[in-house]
Amino acid sequence: MHRSHTCGELRLDNNGVTVTLSGWVQKARDLGGMTFVDLRDRYGITQLVFNMETDAALCEKARKLGREFVIKVSGEVIERESKNKKNPTGEVEIDVKSLEILNVSKTPPFTIENETDGGDDLRMQYRYLDLRRAPVQKNIMLRHRVGMETRKYLDSVGFIDVETPYLIKSTPEGARDFVVPSRMNPGQFYALPQSPQTFKQLLMVSGFDRYYQIVKCFRDEDLRADRQPEFTQIDCEMAFVEQEDILNTFEGMVRHLFKVVLNVEIEDFPRMDYDDAMCLYGSDKPDVRFEMKFCDMAEVTQGKGFGVFDSAEAVLGIVVPGAADYTRKQLDKLTDWVKRPQIGAKGLIYCKMNEDGTTKSSVDKFFDDDARAEWAEKTGANKGDLILVLSGDLDKTRKQLGELRLYMGTELGLRDPKVFKPLWVMDFPLLEWDEDTERYHAMHHPFTSPKPDQLALIDTDPGKVKANAYDMVINGVEIGGGSIRIHDRELQARMFDLLGFSPEEAEAQFGFLMNAFQYGAPPHGGLALGFDRLCSMFGGSDSIRDFIAFPKNNSGRDMMIDAPSPIHDEQYSELQLKSTHTPK
Amino acid sequence: MHRSHTCGELRLDNNGVTVTLSGWVQKARDLGGMTFVDLRDRYGITQLVFNMETDAALCEKARKLGREFVIKVSGEVIERESKNKKNPTGEVEIDVKSLEILNVSKTPPFTIENETDGGDDLRMQYRYLDLRRAPVQKNIMLRHRVGMETRKYLDSVGFIDVETPYLIKSTPEGARDFVVPSRMNPGQFYALPQSPQTFKQLLMVSGFDRYYQIVKCFRDEDLRADRQPEFTQIDCEMAFVEQEDILNTFEGMVRHLFKVVLNVEIEDFPRMDYDDAMCLYGSDKPDVRFEMKFCDMAEVTQGKGFGVFDSAEAVLGIVVPGAADYTRKQLDKLTDWVKRPQIGAKGLIYCKMNEDGTTKSSVDKFFDDDARAEWAEKTGANKGDLILVLSGDLDKTRKQLGELRLYMGTELGLRDPKVFKPLWVMDFPLLEWDEDTERYHAMHHPFTSPKPDQLALIDTDPGKVKANAYDMVINGVEIGGGSIRIHDRELQARMFDLLGFSPEEAEAQFGFLMNAFQYGAPPHGGLALGFDRLCSMFGGSDSIRDFIAFPKNNSGRDMMIDAPSPIHDEQYSELQLKSTHTPK
Repeated sequence: MHRSHTCGELRLDNNGVTVTLSGWVQKARDLGGMTFVDLRDRYGITQLVFNMETDAALCEKARKLGREFVIKVSGEVIERESKNKKNPTGEVEIDVKSLEILNVSKTPPFTIENETDGGDDLRMQYRYLDLRRAPVQKNIMLRHRVGMETRKYLDSVGFIDVETPYLIKSTPEGARDFVVPSRMNPGQFYALPQSPQTFKQLLMVSGFDRYYQIVKCFRDEDLRADRQPEFTQIDCEMAFVEQEDILNTFEGMVRHLFKVVLNVEIEDFPRMDYDDAMCLYGSDKPDVRFEMKFCDMAEVTQGKGFGVFDSAEAVLGIVVPGAADYTRKQLDKLTDWVKRPQIGAKGLIYCKMNEDGTTKSSVDKFFDDDARAEWAEKTGANKGDLILVLSGDLDKTRKQLGELRLYMGTELGLRDPKVFKPLWVMDFPLLEWDEDTERYHAMHHPFTSPKPDQLALIDTDPGKVKANAYDMVINGVEIGGGSIRIHDRELQARMFDLLGFSPEEAEAQFGFLMNAFQYGAPPHGGLALGFDRLCSMFGGSDSIRDFIAFPKNNSGRDMMIDAPSPIHDEQYSELQLKSTHTPK
Repeated sequence: MHRSHTCGELRLDNNGVTVTLSGWVQKARDLGGMTFVDLRDRYGITQLVFNMETDAALCEKARKLGREFVIKVSGEVIERESKNKKNPTGEVEIDVKSLEILNVSKTPPFTIENETDGGDDLRMQYRYLDLRRAPVQKNIMLRHRVGMETRKYLDSVGFIDVETPYLIKSTPEGARDFVVPSRMNPGQFYALPQSPQTFKQLLMVSGFDRYYQIVKCFRDEDLRADRQPEFTQIDCEMAFVEQEDILNTFEGMVRHLFKVVLNVEIEDFPRMDYDDAMCLYGSDKPDVRFEMKFCDMAEVTQGKGFGVFDSAEAVLGIVVPGAADYTRKQLDKLTDWVKRPQIGAKGLIYCKMNEDGTTKSSVDKFFDDDARAEWAEKTGANKGDLILVLSGDLDKTRKQLGELRLYMGTELGLRDPKVFKPLWVMDFPLLEWDEDTERYHAMHHPFTSPKPDQLALIDTDPGKVKANAYDMVINGVEIGGGSIRIHDRELQARMFDLLGFSPEEAEAQFGFLMNAFQYGAPPHGGLALGFDRLCSMFGGSDSIRDFIAFPKNNSGRDMMIDAPSPIHDEQYSELQLKSTHTPK
């Protein structure tokens, strides 16, 4: 071992001990008679001291050390004269007796500091150097801790980690698959799994009872800012359970993780119907760290001669507490914000509930003092509050007001990343109608079971059927979701039919699962949590990329290894494939 | 929850308690007045009893239950009259009060019993039913246990689980890659990793110090009986270490696993030079559960006029203890065995050391009593032993005698699967000469470092250079291997040169790694253990397939989901690919 101790462990207790340390040169300061070197490893930073008086040659050697050189030193632990209370090793330093350079380093293309001067692309290209920075290391270690504690918890309650295959079968339903040509079976392809969904259900048919896996999944989608072509999921399934059992199990897991990883006690883990979430927050993943619930204002706004409201399907408002003193400029800014194409509102109506008891709205022409008092009463606004109102098509208005609500929450500092408010959103619709293809899509996936008491609706009004499906939402972010699955062959076949599969297509793609259901499939259900997302949430960050050791960029490219890349002609011919791509 | 207890937990202590159980009907016995049903789940089997006298309708319903029906019953735990001591729940049964059929089952295509009547192909096609059988479930649960204990151990000694990417870059060195066409980058491909080798080395460059991952790897090889296109590896790397540190760390891990998983104490974990292993056992993965070491018999066999020996490069023998009474027929069978093409020996010479002090060999014409006594002295054979001798080219003879030694060990019952004898084989050659391509190949991989004191030999006699490389061998099976890596850019470039890479090729494929070495790469090394193999070893089986939930067959095909399979024209066109395969 090239060390007796790490750079994070020496304390005053070790005073006088001879130690060997190895690590990277964080920085060197030449103060004439003395040279100080900060030596860094994963565990911390320890100060080394070289003295011209006691060993000039050694000190000269130390002076020549560059940033990020890898060195090995031996020496005596001594008490520091000027202690650094911020550093756990800051009470001691090493009086170095020998110095070996294990490896030299060119000057890194950016500084290896908490705040670096490197741009995004440069840091991705030299990711191995970016990963040396303490905040990035901390993220990756947090991810390890969350993963390990997840495993320990699930193991302790009887879940079995079963590896499902990565080379599976392409199924055109849902997102696009990555495919893998098979050399041994020319003309045929494997697909990389978008999730182990069917395999975990088969494991329930096999009687494994409780399954989990922390597993890579793959989706060949056009990437948005925070999507990765490969991502990781905590994937779970249980048999002989009802929805309640699953919610309790994973509520328990998440409480455990918050406790052991962040030392945070989750007090409340409420449940909310999908319909309520849409109605009160305009979102199926409401951020409940703050109130500002929607108020249906149709009753107090329509029929007063204001055409915009009168012709609207919905008039919805929120009360922004204490914002009555917003200036004209601030309100104009808000109006501009909701009118941006990303939000798409036509305008914003406000009403100030001034501290002095007066009220002032942007539509005073149509709404007099009394009418505005009705607004206050309807919304529950108090003196000092600001009412913001959007109107139009119901679905769009909900979405727009939901965005505005989040914006106001952020503006008012109500979205503290250190406060965690999880909830379950439940009773999702089974299907959603797709205007483009003019058919139903599964809202969750085709294996989700309708609520038993609504089975009859499937034939008469499928869009109305609710599913035994649930999402876990924390701070307005969908952390995961799941459902009770169909375990009956006939119902599964009916479901595929509803989704526009011909019986032949259903058989070709999912015949193995429907067959399995004929041999004693137990009732089962489960969920999957986005592991990258969960880790970034624990780390207080919005970006999953910061919590992935080697992420890809928005073109799905690994900038460090420069992949994907062309393959050899020989590989094409072995795979019996030809490229039809004409490079520009 | 569809149960209050599992089918494995009820005991006499629960006598009188009302319980709800769910599970599969293992079998039903109709004894006229009473019907008994064995109810099975992952946790065990519990006997249900239905009584015509107390509830005829319920009993009729129970009589109609078929094998593998999924049922839910409630009833009272009662003491059994005839107890079954072999079953942990065998002292009680459930006096059933209600019965619900949760799902029916067709008759399975093979019996769900420990010994099934299903053939290999049928069981693979219905893997979800095969996985219901207790021995198969036991294997998968053992795998979970080994994995979990591996993680706990590595976590406890500071290793960080870091996920490395699955969509990486194709590198023609070594085995064939599976490739993944990139739709977003047409004409370009990702490759699935054969191992995370370069990434784990980069993590050491990043300062993660101790890394591990239990990770899927992929090799598109023509499959042998016990190979899988996707397999799992315990992958580890450490920085600032020397070979000794790695050996000690993973010796500790394996001891821990044997202790906690099998309750086996590993007494001895010897180390053996590669040269000694080849010389004494004719194999780089010797089974040291038994002796029967090779003896170089040239001195006592050559120059006695027996042409076969005289012209041979090597004459090697083993002493088979207590086998002097082998009959002519047995010896003929052994001779036939070594002459099979798989072994390829030209013949087998024996010499019996009879109990009465006489000796008898198959070459008495050339070797008289005294000469045969010299054989006994040279080999250390005692009265009652049998000496078996092979001769010819050194490498081939070693290989042949190594196989014969294993065969005799099995014959004599010296290879008990419940006895575990691990060892390290060390100091492997850095390179091996490939006759076909007329160039050197890396014996381990191109990142393995030569022993520092042999660096000079690289230029003069590269085939002689030994590497800081080691294999972990248990009971004659290579469980894993690793090495101290090169961390110097120049040496790595020299290595690629030796292996026949042009500087351009080396740069194109591994430029990112060689660049990383310029920015302060620490000394590092590691190893990878075959997880599938390790689990099968713990389970006392030779077959890794038994320890994989959803294995592929020898054509790389998943018989259950029928993958790989053709993809749609639309997928080809999105990927800008065309198949050149002409179906026969």
